Amino acid sequence: MESAIPSHLQTARSRHRRVPDDYAPPYPSFVARHKPAVTRVIMAYFGVQYHGEPTAAVAEALAQIAARFAGDNGPSHWDRAHYVDQAGFTNVVSVSYWDDAARFDAWFDGARETWTGGTPADGIGRFIEVLRPDVARYETLFSSPDRAEGVAVLADAMSGEVQEHAYWGGMRDRIPLSQTDAMAPRGEPRAVRDGARIRVVAHDNLCLIRSGQDWSDTEAAERKMYLDDVEPVLREGMDFLRDDGVAIGCYANRYMQVVDGAGRPTEKSYGQSWWKSLAALERWAESHPTHVKIFGAAMKYLMTLGPSAKLRLYHEVTVAAADEQFFEYLGCHDRTGMLGAVPLTVDSA
Amino acid sequence: MESAIPSHLQTARSRHRRVPDDYAPPYPSFVARHKPAVTRVIMAYFGVQYHGEPTAAVAEALAQIAARFAGDNGPSHWDRAHYVDQAGFTNVVSVSYWDDAARFDAWFDGARETWTGGTPADGIGRFIEVLRPDVARYETLFSSPDRAEGVAVLADAMSGEVQEHAYWGGMRDRIPLSQTDAMAPRGEPRAVRDGARIRVVAHDNLCLIRSGQDWSDTEAAERKMYLDDVEPVLREGMDFLRDDGVAIGCYANRYMQVVDGAGRPTEKSYGQSWWKSLAALERWAESHPTHVKIFGAAMKYLMTLGPSAKLRLYHEVTVAAADEQFFEYLGCHDRTGMLGAVPLTVDSA
Repeated sequence: MESAIPSHLQTARSRHRRVPDDYAPPYPSFVARHKPAVTRVIMAYFGVQYHGEPTAAVAEALAQIAARFAGDNGPSHWDRAHYVDQAGFTNVVSVSYWDDAARFDAWFDGARETWTGGTPADGIGRFIEVLRPDVARYETLFSSPDRAEGVAVLADAMSGEVQEHAYWGGMRDRIPLSQTDAMAPRGEPRAVRDGARIRVVAHDNLCLIRSGQDWSDTEAAERKMYLDDVEPVLREGMDFLRDDGVAIGCYANRYMQVVDGAGRPTEKSYGQSWWKSLAALERWAESHPTHVKIFGAAMKYLMTLGPSAKLRLYHEVTVAAADEQFFEYLGCHDRTGMLGAVPLTVDSA
Repeated sequence: MESAIPSHLQTARSRHRRVPDDYAPPYPSFVARHKPAVTRVIMAYFGVQYHGEPTAAVAEALAQIAARFAGDNGPSHWDRAHYVDQAGFTNVVSVSYWDDAARFDAWFDGARETWTGGTPADGIGRFIEVLRPDVARYETLFSSPDRAEGVAVLADAMSGEVQEHAYWGGMRDRIPLSQTDAMAPRGEPRAVRDGARIRVVAHDNLCLIRSGQDWSDTEAAERKMYLDDVEPVLREGMDFLRDDGVAIGCYANRYMQVVDGAGRPTEKSYGQSWWKSLAALERWAESHPTHVKIFGAAMKYLMTLGPSAKLRLYHEVTVAAADEQFFEYLGCHDRTGMLGAVPLTVDSA
């Protein structure tokens, strides 16, 4: 049993963990371990938004960003997923990860100019959402150590079994900064117009979660149980956050279906959401009826199957400083991502 | 909105609350407020244990303790409840409350001698379980401010709406000592034989919860929903704690039905349980399947009924110092109360 906080990020505490030192979690979980030399990771979401069937322009945009990813200083890992949003638009999001800010910086300007630097064209919207957190500001969690997803693909290894999980508050306790900082949000998001682009300037301690499930290994009975008993409840919670999340501090939520290299749906999905604070995410997860239902359904599922469960679960959670964020939208409808968090009248840059 | 911790018990913190200062609970709750002059409360459980139908000796014992309660320096409030335990014995427990340790001390020795001072007789067991916590070591919570139960009957008043509730960790945050102390348990319970009596000497930071529900005001539809949808799930959780609680730190659990002055069941019940630590109680409440089901059923019930719900809920939770505890058993079976927490071979006093 080891701490989720790697030893080189352990500091003298001014804030306590939520569990006693002898706490023993009831089942195993694992976290991604970076080499100590990694001080920052970058998570960059590049979105294409369109209505109806994908056009040649959509395919071209997707090919364009994939080519950029494959170029010099491109991400160490990327994946792609899509979903249909509350306004009926399809959003295809290519998510890319770096663990070297210098490489990302060398790569980003050109990619950004290509992606959001022009004018809206061909009926498609484009957006860029980037966090570049210090490693003390993020955490991961995996139900199995043998298949990394998302930022964890960049990691040096998976940990052994960690202590800080399977209790409310574990998410916070896994973030190294929680040793000394309450990570309270400061300020309100605002929009800044820059020609045809709109940037959103959010605030200190904005929170991002990507929380995924992979049912590709499940067999008949388990698969049926996941698809019939768990997935609908999960979807209901995701829809609530998408449609009514703002009132409880969820600026935006996307329930994404991962696609393969040819754009075909895989048996992996994830919810990706932007939150005013880690505390707001904690409150929803712990006590909102929609997540209590998800938690209940997941618990029943895992209790029924026990260690034989083939469903894989993971997440990554970041609490970003104000200067670790970048949001830019071009030709997107006004409830896209962090645009949904700001008044519709915007300042000019 | 006020803190659950009364102003005269607020201290410089070395430990943080689990919620930010701007946390707003989604529904109101209330706590008992004692006069600042009250520095300690006493909760004394007097049990009669028998198998089969109650005999004249049972009635006599119950009348005897009631007469003691009515005598000089008797409790400010008491109530009575019964349950059938895992060994098939009926236990009638008279629970008495004081807010003046001098009065309790003046009263207790005689009552104790009468209750457990003799030898087992007439086929009945008797037990005494007492906590006498400093007011910094206990908290209450009520869903409505207009009907006190348990120790709260002694209070000067109910609070206004308090902030620290409706999140996991609220129970701890309402206990004044949590401002500066993790309240970790130290040591293991042991039994000491004193003639025919067995005393249990537990350990620092033992935890007691009495958690009650009152459905006497509910009308047809709500009553049916409580009795059909909530109560069976609650009972299942109570049975789990009673039968299998020790492995998760619950030394003993009693799911009690409150009785009236004539011994007839009322429409009130409570769970009363002894825990190794507040942390163990937190873990069960937050993540054990049996309590997750209770929480889910209660949440669905309250979501369906909203503010019109007539069900009343309350609890009182104490984390007692080692010298604030007293457990004594005479002629009881060996899984009675804290006897279930100790090896069956006992030291002599």
